[in-house]
Amino acid sequence: MLRVPYDELYGTLLRAMLRLGIAEDRAAECARLFAETTRDGVYTHGLNRFPRFVASVANGSTDVKAEPVKIAGMGALERWDGRRGIGNLNAKTSMQRAIELAKTHGIGGVALSNTNHWMRGGSYGLQAAEQGLFAICWTNTLANLPAWGATTPTIGNNPLVIAVPRAGGHVVLDMATSQFSYGALAGYAKRGQALPVDGGFDLAGNLTRDAAAIEASQRPLPAGYWKGSGLSLVMDMVAAMLSGGLATHQIPLDPTRESGLSQIFLAIDPRSVGDAQEMNQIAEGILESLRNATPADPGKPVRYPGEQTLQLREENMRLGVPVDPEIWEQISGDASAV
Amino acid sequence: MLRVPYDELYGTLLRAMLRLGIAEDRAAECARLFAETTRDGVYTHGLNRFPRFVASVANGSTDVKAEPVKIAGMGALERWDGRRGIGNLNAKTSMQRAIELAKTHGIGGVALSNTNHWMRGGSYGLQAAEQGLFAICWTNTLANLPAWGATTPTIGNNPLVIAVPRAGGHVVLDMATSQFSYGALAGYAKRGQALPVDGGFDLAGNLTRDAAAIEASQRPLPAGYWKGSGLSLVMDMVAAMLSGGLATHQIPLDPTRESGLSQIFLAIDPRSVGDAQEMNQIAEGILESLRNATPADPGKPVRYPGEQTLQLREENMRLGVPVDPEIWEQISGDASAV
Repeated sequence: MLRVPYDELYGTLLRAMLRLGIAEDRAAECARLFAETTRDGVYTHGLNRFPRFVASVANGSTDVKAEPVKIAGMGALERWDGRRGIGNLNAKTSMQRAIELAKTHGIGGVALSNTNHWMRGGSYGLQAAEQGLFAICWTNTLANLPAWGATTPTIGNNPLVIAVPRAGGHVVLDMATSQFSYGALAGYAKRGQALPVDGGFDLAGNLTRDAAAIEASQRPLPAGYWKGSGLSLVMDMVAAMLSGGLATHQIPLDPTRESGLSQIFLAIDPRSVGDAQEMNQIAEGILESLRNATPADPGKPVRYPGEQTLQLREENMRLGVPVDPEIWEQISGDASAV
Repeated sequence: MLRVPYDELYGTLLRAMLRLGIAEDRAAECARLFAETTRDGVYTHGLNRFPRFVASVANGSTDVKAEPVKIAGMGALERWDGRRGIGNLNAKTSMQRAIELAKTHGIGGVALSNTNHWMRGGSYGLQAAEQGLFAICWTNTLANLPAWGATTPTIGNNPLVIAVPRAGGHVVLDMATSQFSYGALAGYAKRGQALPVDGGFDLAGNLTRDAAAIEASQRPLPAGYWKGSGLSLVMDMVAAMLSGGLATHQIPLDPTRESGLSQIFLAIDPRSVGDAQEMNQIAEGILESLRNATPADPGKPVRYPGEQTLQLREENMRLGVPVDPEIWEQISGDASAV
């Protein structure tokens, strides 16, 4: 495994961003979001997504110069147009606006249309938690999942993020509404390993743990079967309707042209209703009760969402951040040519 | 199957409520919520829950005279104390307050502590949708579910409700974060029928579709395994922290004494950001794309959350509302004695 120091990862990504024509301060922010995602162990949505991001810029789906603009709003709720700008920067701007609205009104919301892949959704949950706020946000995606009861993909795997600020480490849920991503299925299929639980249907229409069979049928499961299917659908409805943007069924199916997404960002400022110390004690009580549960496997303590992230971050800062050698060489090679 | 006209169901419940000492207008509202839940086919949370509600009043867990009070707030976010009042009335009052806040600020939120079982969560989603608003709400519950990786129950099956207003019928997701409730497991076990998908672990720790084996192990599954587990945990954290109320691990384990719940009610007024007709068109487009999906079973069209509710409501208004004969006799017998 190739590991590189965080600063080197960041610097290399920054140079690559500048080469794409992104303005300096925005390039720094975009590189930071990519680098932190890989640093935190969310390998699928950091450096490894960079080639797809470059393709999306090259084919015109992402306009690196566009910035989001407010197009409507009242009080604590606003509608913004992402103008097909850079997905992670648009998302960060929108969450920051929701945070500002929440600081004024207790709660704030931004519905964003016309944006691009936000990469790691957890980034925007962390962004709010680091400022002491709770956050709920989600995005729609291209149609990559059959709804429950269907064989053809009509819903997205629309990730949902819920973030809870906590002095001892923020708790951040970042879950796609599919049980396994196509990326995860490919990994299991490549290793010839069975999925830990049913992940989809085979070509005969039976539930299976065989990742290759699911890749063949293109019928991965929504998380919780009918539950994740319904959740994904209503998230698409809320995002597209409030933003006035595209719904999943209207988004191009080519992943490098997946553009015009609709997203929701909600922030809640707890200082408007209570005391931070009291809330922190409540959080500690909940996590302590979780830690005190009897583990199914004595070697595996029960974890809260985001706990592994904090461990991986520490490890990767200490040992260097793991990178895919091929992608790393490609990006650092390109960048050194600048 | 015994079916009774809706008006008779409502009238009988109303008389039963009055016998419990509930004030007239509140009794009417409480009876209406119970009756509508059964009318809409959510049989587990309407009339069939009434005996447990009576027990909760009798043992002092529910104070029929208590009404919720605001204890803190700023702008669009408020914290209310439910004072151990009637769960469905407290929830309705809280959602109505969130709706009022949303009408003023675009978005509004109420965190409610110290309340009781809200019965059918979808009621409060419908309440907002009928007034043209979107809603997100959830509750915590007693600990009835092992977290992913644990064998002992530390999380609740915390239901999540997301409601989308729509001219042609509101779309209302109302999902518990367990894959199957204990009520559903009991039904399958009684009929000796296999669950359609894995519903939990057996005593040997293997995933199973055998409902009786899951009842024996007391290890039902979170919906989506680790996903529903994480979702349930963060919902408990947000509800308890923002309301300053109890978390799942602090709630009494006896279902008739399940009290002091924490709940979140968010409402969004779409008129503050866009045009209702445009949004309705977006909704129709999404549902049309769902209907156009190829069904796995040609006889079963793909449905949206809440679609079955509308069909059952129509059928039950036409044919009479199905009631459990034993519970019906008990309640109507008691009520006629007043």
